[in-house]
Formats: sequence, C-alpha cells, structure tokens
Amino acid sequence: MPLALDIAKRAVALDCAAFDPQALKWAKDAIADMIGCALLGAETETTEAVLSADAFASGPCLVLGRRRRLGRLDAAFVNGTSGHALDYDDTSKSLSGHPTVIIVPGLLALAETLDASGRKFVDAYIVGVETATRIARGVNFHHYEKGWHPTATLGIFGAAAAAGHMLRLDEEKLAHALAMCTSLASGTKANFGTSTKPMHAGLAARNGLFAALMAGEGVEASPVAFEHAQGFLDVFNGPGNHDAARMLSGWAEPLDLLQPGISIKKYPCVYSVHGAIDAAIALHRAGGFAAGDVSAVLVRMHPRRLLPHVRNPATSALNAKFSLPYAVSRGLLGGAVTLDHFEEGALHDPDVTRVMGLVEMQPHDDDANDYGAEVRVTLRDGRILAETVAAPLGRGPEVPLPAEMLEQKFADCARRALTEAGTRSVFHMLMNLDGLASMRRLTAEIEATTAA
Amino acid sequence: MPLALDIAKRAVALDCAAFDPQALKWAKDAIADMIGCALLGAETETTEAVLSADAFASGPCLVLGRRRRLGRLDAAFVNGTSGHALDYDDTSKSLSGHPTVIIVPGLLALAETLDASGRKFVDAYIVGVETATRIARGVNFHHYEKGWHPTATLGIFGAAAAAGHMLRLDEEKLAHALAMCTSLASGTKANFGTSTKPMHAGLAARNGLFAALMAGEGVEASPVAFEHAQGFLDVFNGPGNHDAARMLSGWAEPLDLLQPGISIKKYPCVYSVHGAIDAAIALHRAGGFAAGDVSAVLVRMHPRRLLPHVRNPATSALNAKFSLPYAVSRGLLGGAVTLDHFEEGALHDPDVTRVMGLVEMQPHDDDANDYGAEVRVTLRDGRILAETVAAPLGRGPEVPLPAEMLEQKFADCARRALTEAGTRSVFHMLMNLDGLASMRRLTAEIEATTAA
Repeated sequence: MPLALDIAKRAVALDCAAFDPQALKWAKDAIADMIGCALLGAETETTEAVLSADAFASGPCLVLGRRRRLGRLDAAFVNGTSGHALDYDDTSKSLSGHPTVIIVPGLLALAETLDASGRKFVDAYIVGVETATRIARGVNFHHYEKGWHPTATLGIFGAAAAAGHMLRLDEEKLAHALAMCTSLASGTKANFGTSTKPMHAGLAARNGLFAALMAGEGVEASPVAFEHAQGFLDVFNGPGNHDAARMLSGWAEPLDLLQPGISIKKYPCVYSVHGAIDAAIALHRAGGFAAGDVSAVLVRMHPRRLLPHVRNPATSALNAKFSLPYAVSRGLLGGAVTLDHFEEGALHDPDVTRVMGLVEMQPHDDDANDYGAEVRVTLRDGRILAETVAAPLGRGPEVPLPAEMLEQKFADCARRALTEAGTRSVFHMLMNLDGLASMRRLTAEIEATTAA
Repeated sequence: MPLALDIAKRAVALDCAAFDPQALKWAKDAIADMIGCALLGAETETTEAVLSADAFASGPCLVLGRRRRLGRLDAAFVNGTSGHALDYDDTSKSLSGHPTVIIVPGLLALAETLDASGRKFVDAYIVGVETATRIARGVNFHHYEKGWHPTATLGIFGAAAAAGHMLRLDEEKLAHALAMCTSLASGTKANFGTSTKPMHAGLAARNGLFAALMAGEGVEASPVAFEHAQGFLDVFNGPGNHDAARMLSGWAEPLDLLQPGISIKKYPCVYSVHGAIDAAIALHRAGGFAAGDVSAVLVRMHPRRLLPHVRNPATSALNAKFSLPYAVSRGLLGGAVTLDHFEEGALHDPDVTRVMGLVEMQPHDDDANDYGAEVRVTLRDGRILAETVAAPLGRGPEVPLPAEMLEQKFADCARRALTEAGTRSVFHMLMNLDGLASMRRLTAEIEATTAA
C-alpha cells in the first residue's frame, strides 16, 4: 500500500471516542499553552509587520490578541506566526519541533467557520499530533540534523490531518492532502534567530489547512509522493536516511501525545537549553556565590542541543532566545529566566555579560539523556559547584508541569493582550474545552476581552 | 559579502533604461504567452477546484479568465496555478523549469494595486528572470535531477526579485526577501502528473510576492540563508553539489533572457518532448507510410529529458502531457499535436494507441544537444525513416518562434476565455506592453472581454 494512504487509513481509523482521558488532558494543556503564546506573540514586531503588509482581506476568523478577523488561511498564518514569535510554545521529541503551533491555528480557523464543538477540536488536534509525530519518527533525527526545521516541514502533516479530521475527509482524500504537503513543506534552520523562523510556523499551519481544503475539493497529488525516488523521503532526507516502517509500527499504541509526550516550556527561550537553566537555577538556590566569584562555567549537553541554536553574545532580544550562555548566566545569577529578560533593555546587564563570557559548552554522548544537562561552576576560591538535571520539568508525562505553573504561564502571556477577567475566563474555557458546545464561544470570549 | 546581499545588489543595480530592445521583445512575448496559458488554464478542473474551496476573499486583483477579483497574494496563487495547469507555458534552460508563470502572477497583482506602467512591469519581469536564472546556475542541474521542481524552488527567487523591483526595495530588503525565499521554496517532482504540479507554480508565485511584501515591512531572514551549513545550498542540494560562483559570474552580460534565452512551447505538453515531436511531424510530412505500416519507433534524447516525465500509456489527459510515446505517435500519424489531442475523448484513438505501444526510448549522451531528438521509424517492409532535430523551434533566440505562431498560440488559448474581439485587443496590448500607461488597462480589458 502506498505510504500516504497507509498513514491516512490509520489517521481516519483513530477511535476518538475511546481516547484516554490523559490524552484529552494533555491536548487541552497544549492548546491552552499555544493560545497563550499566540496572545503574547500578537504584540511582537513580527506579527505587527506581517499584519501591516496589506496582504490579507477581512474574513470570519479571529486573529488572536487583535480585534481583527481574516479569512481562514490568513488567520491560520498570522496565529501560527504569533504563536511561535517568542519561541515559548511546546515541543515534541518525536517531531524535534513544535507541534501545537502548527496544528491549532488552522484548526481554530476551520472550527470557527464550521462551528465545531470543543470536543471535535480536541479530537482533531490529537489526530494531528499523532500523524505528524509518526511521520517524523520515520525521518528523524537525520531530518532535523540536516537542517530542516521540522516544526514546519513535519508539523505541516499534522495540520493537514487535523483539518482533514474536522472536514471529515475520507482516507483517499486525506492521502492526497498528506501527499500534497510533501510539496508544501519548507523551512531551513539557517533562518533560526530571525523573524522568518516564526513565519515558518505560520506558513506550515496555513499550508496544512490549505492542503486539506484543496484535497476536499478534489485536487490530487501523487499516491507515492513519500516513497517516490523524487519524493519526500529521498529528496528531503536523502536515500538511506529514513525508515518508513518506523512511521507505522506502534501507531497510536500508545498515542505519541502520551509516550513520549510533549513538553511545555517554562522559560521563554529555545527548549534545548531548559535543562541547563533548571540546573543553573538549582545552583543559584543552593547559593554561596555572587557574580564576581565565578571564574568558569561548563555546560554539558547532548550534541543535538548544542547546535545550531547557541549564539553568543546575545546581540538582540531574538538572538538571546537561542543563547545558552545568556540563559544559563541569568539562571545562575538571578534564579529565574522570565519574559522580562528577553526585552531589549535587559540584555546588557554587566554581571550577566561577564559570566556569559565564561561559559563553555561541551557535548556529552548519553542518548538516553538527550534533554538533560550538567552545569559546573568554578569559583575564584577553587570551589566547584555542579548540578545535573536528567530532564527538565514539563518534559512529558513523567515530569508534568504542575497545573498552577501552566495557569501562571498562561496568565503571564495572556495578560499583555487580554483584560485580567478575560485572562481568567479564557483559561477556564480552555481547561474545559472538550465540553464546549461551540469553538465560536471561545474566540468570541477572546475577542471581547482583548484589551487593545 | 553574504550571497543574498551580493545577488540583491546586482538585481538592484540592473540598468533597466538600458535594456536591449531584444530583451524587451522577449519579455513581452513571454508575458503574452503566459497570460494566454492562464486564460486557457482558468477553465481547468484544477483552477475550478482551487476556487471552489472557499479559501480566498474578494480583493482588487483579477483572476485571469474569470470575472472575479481576489487579494493580491491569492490572485497570484490562482493565476500561477492556471498558468501552469496545462503545462503549456515557457521554459528556461538555466532554470530547468518555467520562469514566466512564477514571475508574472505576483507582478500582475502588484501592478494592479500600485497602478504601475507597462514598462515598469516589463522591467521588473526582466529583473526577475535574471535573478532566478542566475541563482539556478549555481545549483543546476543537480537541483533538478535530485527531484526538486525548479519552476517552484528556484522560480520563487525571480518572483521575489520582480516584486521587489516594483516595490522599490533597497538591496538590504531585497536580500532579506531572497533569504526568506530559501524557507518558502518547495515542490518535488514526485507530484508531476497530478494537479499538485500546477499548484507548485501558483504557490511559488504567491510566496515570492509574499516574501517581497514581508521584507518591505521589515521582516528579516538570515544574511547567510544560502551558504549557511543548514541553509539553501547544503540542505536542498547537499554539500559539494552547488557552486555559488556560477550565480555571480557574468551576471547580466548578457541577460539570461537573451543567452541562452527562454523557449516558448508550440505543443501543449511537457517541453522535454518538443524536439521529438518536431522530428515526428517532419517524418509525417515526408510521408510514405500509414499507421498500419509501422513496426517500430525509436526515440533518442538526452537522459535528462527521458525521466521522470514519461508515462506510458496515457491514462489521463494530464498524464498524456508527460507521455513521449503519445506525443510522438500523434506527430507521426497526424502531423500535429494540438490542444484537442489532450482532451479526454481523444486519448483512445486505436491507431495512436497501437503505435504508442511500439515506441522505445534510448538516451544519448550529447550534452550540447540536450533538447534535440532523433526519431527513427521502422516500417513492416523493412524501410527505416529517420529525422534528427538539433533544437525545437522556439528554443531561444537562435530559433525564435515566428510572430504569427505566437499570435496563433495566444488565440488558441485565449479564445476559450475571451471574446474574439478581446482575444485580438488583449494580444495587441500585450505586444505593446512597454508603452502601456497603466497595467490596470490591461486587466480591465481582459475582464471586460471575458466571455463567461
């Protein structure tokens, strides 16, 4: 059976009524987190620039954090771009990227135009995550290491599958949508650290929805678009650098959302450095040193986490999000890494700048510990302080982010766009999304409580 | 100097006032030919499906062949898709693809919203062709042979440069637009022969304009998006399979539009088979055989022309466009290959089907003759008839398509969408495009004479 159809059959066959309650919980957490990130991102220069280009006409779908509505493809693009603008949204190990920011924007626009229920929305989201992450298993981590931005180049399949579920595409049409996505996937890591990176997310969100809509109208793609010699696997990854069997084996047993699960960020910077920040904060809390005491800082992480994310020195607020030395120094000296630390005015703290210059990075080769980190601080008096973190808090089902931390993060993000009352009411709706009769109620509440 | 900026400087520095009159002539021919193709393509199932998806809002920009106007990005997408729907649009050897269908749609939408003159339009088109084909020289033909669809993955740079010229982007902003395009480029040859292929063109047309608009608003991309280890050259082509120096050497001296130039199709099928059709038609004209006399047909072409285009048997009107056996059999038996031959009802002619089954294909290895072809027919009585064509008529400045053939082709294409009078008046405007005060007059005339 051609791969696109094989995948589509499995996606269509998922029994949504039987989804594990834990999957629904994780889905709601991730959706809430993404919407918080988009509300925060709506005020960024990137979203401002995108909306000022006179490129989009008015339509029925809300731009999160704005009192503006666009057509569904354009709304998906803008919300996806906002959602990733601060690189604060969730991540998936299977994807090696950010799943929710690609799946939710198109689904939200579609749900508004179709007047879908919250449960339908959550189900479609889970179908999308499963599809994207299973396809990802067949091409990662080579796909990521080669230079593709999997958030976009693999996430797009999740966006198409989620939209396809909501559109009730049959397996043949969903196969065409997935095959079409092989010709829409794009985004390279060279553009990390620029405002093009969040646009990768917006475009993949848009294009996944686009593929589902077009397939629904009868537009076709090659049945063998994945396995063809000039198709997705060989062209994107190169011959020998993929294994389609890994996409299919163990499909949904359990759902990828439950194992290995997704990770919700606590710090507003690239996820690769979260383990190192946890370790740095633990050292700060243990105490016993001031900025002037530090003579060396060594950070050991898995090599996949070291490149190409790290930029030093932090020359701009955007670059700082990819700067391990900056984040670790902030954690060591202040015991916290917050949104405020990535505002332009905060980047030139003299103590942080000095310690940042002392940070060395080394790879470790423990594949089982690929998001863990060790931070080792040498003080002028010769003492060495060290902390090792096996996995950052919030990394999957085994170390979930506590509920109050999720709400606190949502409030930190949303309060810049919504009223205080709106921040609370919208979060409450999101935590009960699977009981919501109409997704239009959610966007209406967001719109009504948007401050600007 | 980073590559994106180096290219952008050269594009911005082009002296449009000094363009060779032959360049203006070729530009006008190519633009007219593309608009004819889009008028023809507007009636295809693909364009019908694309427009029925309720994906696009109304706006100021004409959909060619329809009495409908959309926003500029959406109009660029639909017109690009229509323009390539029948694979009848022009080709570029440097690009290994179709240049004009990617550059014109965004430029037309932009010209309508900016009220640009015809000369400005022609100038911007030439800037676009030069930029796309020079970038292409640095990555072809590996880029094509690997499986990318260069029409989309390289044409997008031309669309961005052309739009950037019309938007008067400075070299810094144009560099950002080109760098952004490295993250928007997509389309694999696995999807050839499906309705996703014309959408590649539409999406690249849209995304090139999109990148120029976004860069104009200040959205940035990496200065080293081409040469970065995880950037365009290494990720798309692979290390060692590109040569950036080839992009820059000889820039605009002469313009690629003049040497090697572009090729305008005479037959409504993939360009790779045009040389073989010319040879087949010459054999038909020489005469002396009927369908029943043929016992074998051998076609020899350059290996790049043989794969993956050829599909046999012709199972659908779309597949037939990529079927060398079908096209050669039509030429041998009827002395012509016309639009009518690619309608569903024409595909099952018994004589053509029989001869099609006799066609064998062999590669030759004469790189200087890479669009030439030899057709050798063996008859039942033992006679062998052979014809060799060095280059198909219409292939570049040395064998230009005669003016009356261009008009005849335009009329064949346009008469299905426009009135007879409109077909003539629009062609006349197109032949004098560089003297047109406003491009809005062209689209108004097309709209006013659209029959449906």
